Amino acid sequence: MTESTETPAAAAPEKTPTENGTTETPPEETPEKATEEKEKVETPPPKEMRAVVLTGFGGLKTVKILKKPEPSVGEGEVLIRVKACGLNFQDLIVRQGAIDSPPKTPFILGFECAGEVEQVGEGVTNFKVGDQVVAIPEYKAWAELVAVPAQYVYALPEGMTALDAVAVTTNYVVAYLLLFEMANLTPGKSLLVHSAGGGVGQAVAQLAKTVENVTVFGVCSKSKHEALKANNNNIDHLLERGSDYTNEVRKVSPDGVDIVLDCLCGEECNRGYSLLKPMGRYILYGASNIVTGETKSFFSAARAWWQVDKVSPIKLFDENKSLAGLNLRHLLFQHGRADYVRRAVDRVFALWGEGKVKPLVDSTWALEDVAEAMQKMHDRKNIGKLVLDPSLEPKPKPATPAKGKSGKEKKPAKESSEEKKDKEAKEEEKKPAENGEKNGEKNGEKNGEEPLTNGNSDEESKEEKKEKESS
Amino acid sequence: MTESTETPAAAAPEKTPTENGTTETPPEETPEKATEEKEKVETPPPKEMRAVVLTGFGGLKTVKILKKPEPSVGEGEVLIRVKACGLNFQDLIVRQGAIDSPPKTPFILGFECAGEVEQVGEGVTNFKVGDQVVAIPEYKAWAELVAVPAQYVYALPEGMTALDAVAVTTNYVVAYLLLFEMANLTPGKSLLVHSAGGGVGQAVAQLAKTVENVTVFGVCSKSKHEALKANNNNIDHLLERGSDYTNEVRKVSPDGVDIVLDCLCGEECNRGYSLLKPMGRYILYGASNIVTGETKSFFSAARAWWQVDKVSPIKLFDENKSLAGLNLRHLLFQHGRADYVRRAVDRVFALWGEGKVKPLVDSTWALEDVAEAMQKMHDRKNIGKLVLDPSLEPKPKPATPAKGKSGKEKKPAKESSEEKKDKEAKEEEKKPAENGEKNGEKNGEKNGEEPLTNGNSDEESKEEKKEKESS
Repeated sequence: MTESTETPAAAAPEKTPTENGTTETPPEETPEKATEEKEKVETPPPKEMRAVVLTGFGGLKTVKILKKPEPSVGEGEVLIRVKACGLNFQDLIVRQGAIDSPPKTPFILGFECAGEVEQVGEGVTNFKVGDQVVAIPEYKAWAELVAVPAQYVYALPEGMTALDAVAVTTNYVVAYLLLFEMANLTPGKSLLVHSAGGGVGQAVAQLAKTVENVTVFGVCSKSKHEALKANNNNIDHLLERGSDYTNEVRKVSPDGVDIVLDCLCGEECNRGYSLLKPMGRYILYGASNIVTGETKSFFSAARAWWQVDKVSPIKLFDENKSLAGLNLRHLLFQHGRADYVRRAVDRVFALWGEGKVKPLVDSTWALEDVAEAMQKMHDRKNIGKLVLDPSLEPKPKPATPAKGKSGKEKKPAKESSEEKKDKEAKEEEKKPAENGEKNGEKNGEKNGEEPLTNGNSDEESKEEKKEKESS
Repeated sequence: MTESTETPAAAAPEKTPTENGTTETPPEETPEKATEEKEKVETPPPKEMRAVVLTGFGGLKTVKILKKPEPSVGEGEVLIRVKACGLNFQDLIVRQGAIDSPPKTPFILGFECAGEVEQVGEGVTNFKVGDQVVAIPEYKAWAELVAVPAQYVYALPEGMTALDAVAVTTNYVVAYLLLFEMANLTPGKSLLVHSAGGGVGQAVAQLAKTVENVTVFGVCSKSKHEALKANNNNIDHLLERGSDYTNEVRKVSPDGVDIVLDCLCGEECNRGYSLLKPMGRYILYGASNIVTGETKSFFSAARAWWQVDKVSPIKLFDENKSLAGLNLRHLLFQHGRADYVRRAVDRVFALWGEGKVKPLVDSTWALEDVAEAMQKMHDRKNIGKLVLDPSLEPKPKPATPAKGKSGKEKKPAKESSEEKKDKEAKEEEKKPAENGEKNGEKNGEKNGEEPLTNGNSDEESKEEKKEKESS
């Protein structure tokens, strides 16, 4: 894929007047544009598309919907007209910049999308125009058009929609690799999975139950327990995040469990290891505590790191235990194991064909509502997959109040969970008038002062303030 | 099993006049004994048996063949008339005392034996008198009779001899658990195994080759390479112990290997980890460097420990790698997973039935020759299993020279490999006249001054001296 250069409209991401944050069809795509192109036949402006762009590392206000030139398809690449994008926790970690060698901002976010092949590059023989596909590219998945190296593109089986595909691919491939390549799940074993209500958690529970007589312990927020009980019966024992769940596990299974799957990191690593039976396996497949701990980004990352005990192989030998890590993106983009991942995708799609994989979608969002979707994932309120659909209209937004009114800073439209904890007592006072989450009023006007990401733009200043306070 | 108390004959293990180190049938088992028993009808002396007893932790001279009371069979136990005993590296580690909570000496050594059921204890329903069995007890396996809890006893399949059984059971169960429970060996994978000529190494190579298209790298002493090439073709790439074998592996497989099986510990842990491909697994299943490093016991153990890098689960997550340990004896005797091990034994015996497991016996020894067998294992000269057979006559021993002759200490009958390295230049001078290893002269006389363990009794003093020098 050729590197897309920013259009003048998006050249100054910190200044917002020309950015498009509305529900309207952007003017660049109106018939007027064609007229403009006729006037400049010698240097036609590149065609543009909407994309979710990270303009700087940090909070939600750094995520913007911008016009970007349509990508051209390079050798070995496939150009996809995107119908659905998958949100993954990794997107939140990237936004915070809590990753090794992050790309330079601005860049298009996203690691998962599905749609129709619009063009194939030179040397691509396994895809043709019109194929329905899903892709796991290294960034740039959240846009109307995406050019992806063919090795990260997978043909959809007959009958699988783009929505299904983004709900299935990353989550179930991770779950499949965890359970069947790494943990060697066999009948009669027990496993504990964190974030049991999330996309991977649900995939793990579902795939685990394809094996006879497996006991699943699932840890998640108490608030999700009722919904999870109503939705499915794949989790045998629901445990409360933040509680002393290890005691609860020991009540059911005094020897502990055979498998612990941890996407949180931090002190959960040590707890998970200690819960293992002999011959048990602990597998770390994420580090979401890095961005949802008590403090944000650097401080959480450091804490998550120092809370994790290093282990000697000699200890593992004495205790008959096993420690492992799975990082799908490193596997694909740093470790060159695309072939290995493709075999897992094939297997997961086969299981979908057999009806054993039934993806659970929490909700579907317009690109413009990505910040709200990210906040929902951050607050761990989703059950199943969060999906972006470029064809969707954004949710109605609140009316924009006059700035500086009453001498206070603008309040966040939605508080993050940890802010809520701190300020529960003052909740009434704090409830801002402009919180339009439920007022149903549609703001269809283009407005330079309007937060681009549907009402969450000011949260970041609070986050930053909080981080300084706790440092 | 009731704890056997020592007979007066063995009460002073450091004084040897009444100990039996000869090839003769011991007087206790001659017809005269029956006459004696008739004379003392009211308090018949307990029946006695020969056993390999560790009289104190240390070198070979601490291993003695003593008369011990025959064990009685307790509730849930099986009494086995032993036909074959398996030597395992763990026996050398136990002899040195390099284990956690060792039993108090003196005790009967050995973790593996096979024979015929002579008696079954109360509550044992799955065995009957006359059954051919193999057992993996916690010590006490190297004796003419052994009482073992039934959970550690396994019935032999039709046609399997006691010799086969001790060559198969421990080694192949370890190899099976490593490859198929822990490493998830599947077609096309590559693996590296240390001590490739040893019992477990040979079992690993053989079982690995039951999977299609697996590449086996085997590390072992150069001296074994020719014999291994002649014996079998299960090892694709033989590498030299002590050489820079990681470079050799990279020449064949630039990305490294999928599986590393390490029974050495020490710096091999770090090397093994670094050789792993992404999604690769390093498994530590032994720590033989603890007793065969440059120094002995404590110093080697400490060195092996400090050479091993501790690893954070976060590193495993970043690198898509896995670390594990397998300790069969902890699994059985500390972790209570006898049921799990039994399933592996069943599977291994089934593979034997299918002709896929073909045990390789290096050599068979009389109980009295146990020290020589241990030395062979220590020097890593065996290819396949070392077996003790209580019915065998000991090898002929050298004539005993007058003590103190020529003012020197008695020379060791056989030098350990590391002593050889140090003293190669002086080899001619050092060759002691009493080295009877090849003189074929049979010493059938009972002799209080005679080393009990067939000519190796003085090696220990040299070992101890060397240890002091290097400390």
